Amino acid sequence: MGENEGEIVEHHVEEEPERNGTRTHSFLESLTPSDREGNSSTQSSHRLLAYSDALISIIATVMILPVAHTKIEDDEELKESLQNLLATKIAVYLMTFLIVTVAWAAHIRLFQVIERIDDCLALLNLACMMLITFLPYTFSLMATFPENILGILLFCSCVIVIGLIQAIIVTYGFRQPFLLNDQIQTSENQAFYKWHILKVILRVPILCFVAIIFSFFFSPMSYVLLAIVIFLPYISQSVKWCYRKAKGQVEESPDSMLFYSFHPNEPLSKERVEAFSDGVYAIVATLLILDICEDNVPDPREVQEKFRGSLIEALQGFGPEFLAYFGSFATVGLLWFVHHSLFLHVTKTSRLMGLFNTFSLAFVGGLPLAYQLTHEFPRNSRNELEAIQISCVIIFFAGIFQMAIWVAALFGERRALHPYVRYAGRDHAFMFAKLALYPSVALGTFLLTCALSQFSAPIFHLMEVTVPFAFLLLRLLVRVGLALMRFVFSPAKRSASDVPEYEDPRLPFTEMVN
Amino acid sequence: MGENEGEIVEHHVEEEPERNGTRTHSFLESLTPSDREGNSSTQSSHRLLAYSDALISIIATVMILPVAHTKIEDDEELKESLQNLLATKIAVYLMTFLIVTVAWAAHIRLFQVIERIDDCLALLNLACMMLITFLPYTFSLMATFPENILGILLFCSCVIVIGLIQAIIVTYGFRQPFLLNDQIQTSENQAFYKWHILKVILRVPILCFVAIIFSFFFSPMSYVLLAIVIFLPYISQSVKWCYRKAKGQVEESPDSMLFYSFHPNEPLSKERVEAFSDGVYAIVATLLILDICEDNVPDPREVQEKFRGSLIEALQGFGPEFLAYFGSFATVGLLWFVHHSLFLHVTKTSRLMGLFNTFSLAFVGGLPLAYQLTHEFPRNSRNELEAIQISCVIIFFAGIFQMAIWVAALFGERRALHPYVRYAGRDHAFMFAKLALYPSVALGTFLLTCALSQFSAPIFHLMEVTVPFAFLLLRLLVRVGLALMRFVFSPAKRSASDVPEYEDPRLPFTEMVN
Repeated sequence: MGENEGEIVEHHVEEEPERNGTRTHSFLESLTPSDREGNSSTQSSHRLLAYSDALISIIATVMILPVAHTKIEDDEELKESLQNLLATKIAVYLMTFLIVTVAWAAHIRLFQVIERIDDCLALLNLACMMLITFLPYTFSLMATFPENILGILLFCSCVIVIGLIQAIIVTYGFRQPFLLNDQIQTSENQAFYKWHILKVILRVPILCFVAIIFSFFFSPMSYVLLAIVIFLPYISQSVKWCYRKAKGQVEESPDSMLFYSFHPNEPLSKERVEAFSDGVYAIVATLLILDICEDNVPDPREVQEKFRGSLIEALQGFGPEFLAYFGSFATVGLLWFVHHSLFLHVTKTSRLMGLFNTFSLAFVGGLPLAYQLTHEFPRNSRNELEAIQISCVIIFFAGIFQMAIWVAALFGERRALHPYVRYAGRDHAFMFAKLALYPSVALGTFLLTCALSQFSAPIFHLMEVTVPFAFLLLRLLVRVGLALMRFVFSPAKRSASDVPEYEDPRLPFTEMVN
Repeated sequence: MGENEGEIVEHHVEEEPERNGTRTHSFLESLTPSDREGNSSTQSSHRLLAYSDALISIIATVMILPVAHTKIEDDEELKESLQNLLATKIAVYLMTFLIVTVAWAAHIRLFQVIERIDDCLALLNLACMMLITFLPYTFSLMATFPENILGILLFCSCVIVIGLIQAIIVTYGFRQPFLLNDQIQTSENQAFYKWHILKVILRVPILCFVAIIFSFFFSPMSYVLLAIVIFLPYISQSVKWCYRKAKGQVEESPDSMLFYSFHPNEPLSKERVEAFSDGVYAIVATLLILDICEDNVPDPREVQEKFRGSLIEALQGFGPEFLAYFGSFATVGLLWFVHHSLFLHVTKTSRLMGLFNTFSLAFVGGLPLAYQLTHEFPRNSRNELEAIQISCVIIFFAGIFQMAIWVAALFGERRALHPYVRYAGRDHAFMFAKLALYPSVALGTFLLTCALSQFSAPIFHLMEVTVPFAFLLLRLLVRVGLALMRFVFSPAKRSASDVPEYEDPRLPFTEMVN
């Protein structure tokens, strides 16, 4: 976008090089003052952050692959095999997702303090990323060998090194203050901020160090400590809340405003939440085609022998896979679409909304598992129905947590939502309809599978493909409804008290007090 | 970023909802005029495009997986197996990459005309994306069964449907002109533009339709047509260039400026080139850890039986894999870093720069193959050396095409580069050093493998890990060099003619005429 170019150029504000004769002069001159300070090579961090978001979102989602690729025998009962799966792999997936998300949140906060980068910081950040991408592996070691301390040692060492690199980044940033957030840059007690931020950053590595020590003689304690690491922000937030309540509502000191960007309970950057979510949706949508490209190109020799050279016949066996692909892609695409519509109207993301978003994304990441399950079993078997039910559950939760984001925004501060979608806003009903579509379709399908034993995976995938039309229909219906309302009310100019009955009665939360 | 919020808000410029008493009124009123036009639901297309970029970049890179996962037997000669591979899979990868890139370029142009979206366009775009993600599969069918027309039929039908959806998007956009580019929106002969753009969009589907017809009686012709599709923009550009030369240099008519956004030979949006490149680098970096997470977690039973329960011993077997992972991640990360540094100073991307960027990315996409090859063979075998040589070739070309982007920018228009990195600019030498580092390291390593038969994959990966320090060293060296120059020249104030000898003599291209 135009703005970004403007931003980059902003940091080298100076001249075009002068005409031929004076070139030498300008060349040497331009090196002199600002170069010694290193000021010249600072860059906007926009693209570094976008790249980090992409890496982290892929890594968060990758651990679903070992789950999805677990072969389940046809004669096994799906329920039992899933229970075994649940015990390890799904737990690994969910925990990895949460841990990577915690690392990502820390990364956001760090680069809210350090707003400009130079080459050195870019390289340090890449080193940090390398270790973050390694976390899922150490975690799966930990889950596969819970008795062995090697997994926990590796995991904790990675976290400690990440913490140290981040501490170096902060120290480096404070030594070259033009890299910092403007607010901190102009503040007088920089040293104080520096120690505060370092303290926040080093909290996690220190906990991990303690976990390493414990792992040598009492390993369950280390797992407890790791759980604390994940939930630390929430714990510290509630502790602070209790403390404040106990002391009576103390007002925020004006100084604490300056910490805003490093308080773990303050809003996340909306742009980075969007970028991270985009990454997750994109990788989930394409994990599906990745499997198809690898597994579903028939072998030429086999086609010759088994199908007498008829490629169409050979491909017919893959029919369910293709249908499943299109169905799943449509589902992921539309969940992204709902997310996109919602965040268009979100103006501020609170911690709670970020948490709901993470949960929603974790379920979205489970969709490849649903895809794998639904086309794997013979038609009309007990397992097939259960696979469909599992898919419905995954889709239901992905949708319901999206709705939770909206509810949190409605309940939360007035400024978290655009007026159009607030209670009684113009697009309020439409937004609700959009958010409610997937949970209700998933719930309906789930109930159908209980009632109809004839329900099959192809029907399910066909349903998935047709949902987009439901979105268009929804749009039409809402329009017709609004036109009707306009027809009834506009000429008559009824009184204000009549309207609330046209609001959706299912919405228990309101913002009646304006 | 802050700007985006501003942008979104821009499209719903209106009021906060009024106070309690008048709420009904405002609710009904707000629906009336602009809603009927549909104006209310327009959104900035920023996030839709970012999501599309992410999807397309992943899809472009995915086809390297079947190549990388091809098992090569230890006793086979690597050269022979690679020749077999080259014949099909690598060709499929490269062609898919190019085709997907062409689809991406068309997508850029389309959304340079249509700058705002509404729900309908978002859904149409998702449908388009679904078909684009399916292209690699049809293409690999085509390559596996070149005799069978089914592959080509599927491929062409996909392209035709994509073209039709894009035509619908354009028609829809022109029926609601507030969605269009401001330039076209204010223009008087919109109908003319509409037909021009539709003509450009439908060119490719029509060629594909002809290819389908040919495939029934003379299939080689269809492949020729498909090749034309890929190189069409370049062909049409050179034809136009020849035509212009033949007629004498005709000046651009002022009207043709308006077509700017839809001429295939005009600059690509820099932001989208960056987003696409980020996607490719991110997915390549994480494809590696994906393999590690799936294949390198040892089986608990095996550890118990083979290694008497010692996890460390079991993991030692995977040592080369881990080293290869860190080495490859460092390489991908640093290639990204160079790309990032380069594009910070690029102000405008020409068609040629876009092409070089695509080639560079295609080689970057080949890195997972290099990773797979270098840790697969027993140490000091002939195959291992050849695998390292292949890696060097891939890295060399990825780096050399990055340099080609820079050269194209230097040769090209004056405005394509920021003054700092132009010839005689402040960071010119440093940028050259950065861009030259990887090609020269790769070349050096290649020569080393020819001379030293003791050279092994672990050494190679260790080298890869140490390159980042070379970057820091480079920075230091350039600084020391500059400080020295300042010391020698600044007090003496020598004449202008002395300086050129300090410029890099290897740069044959200059911008002497100012």
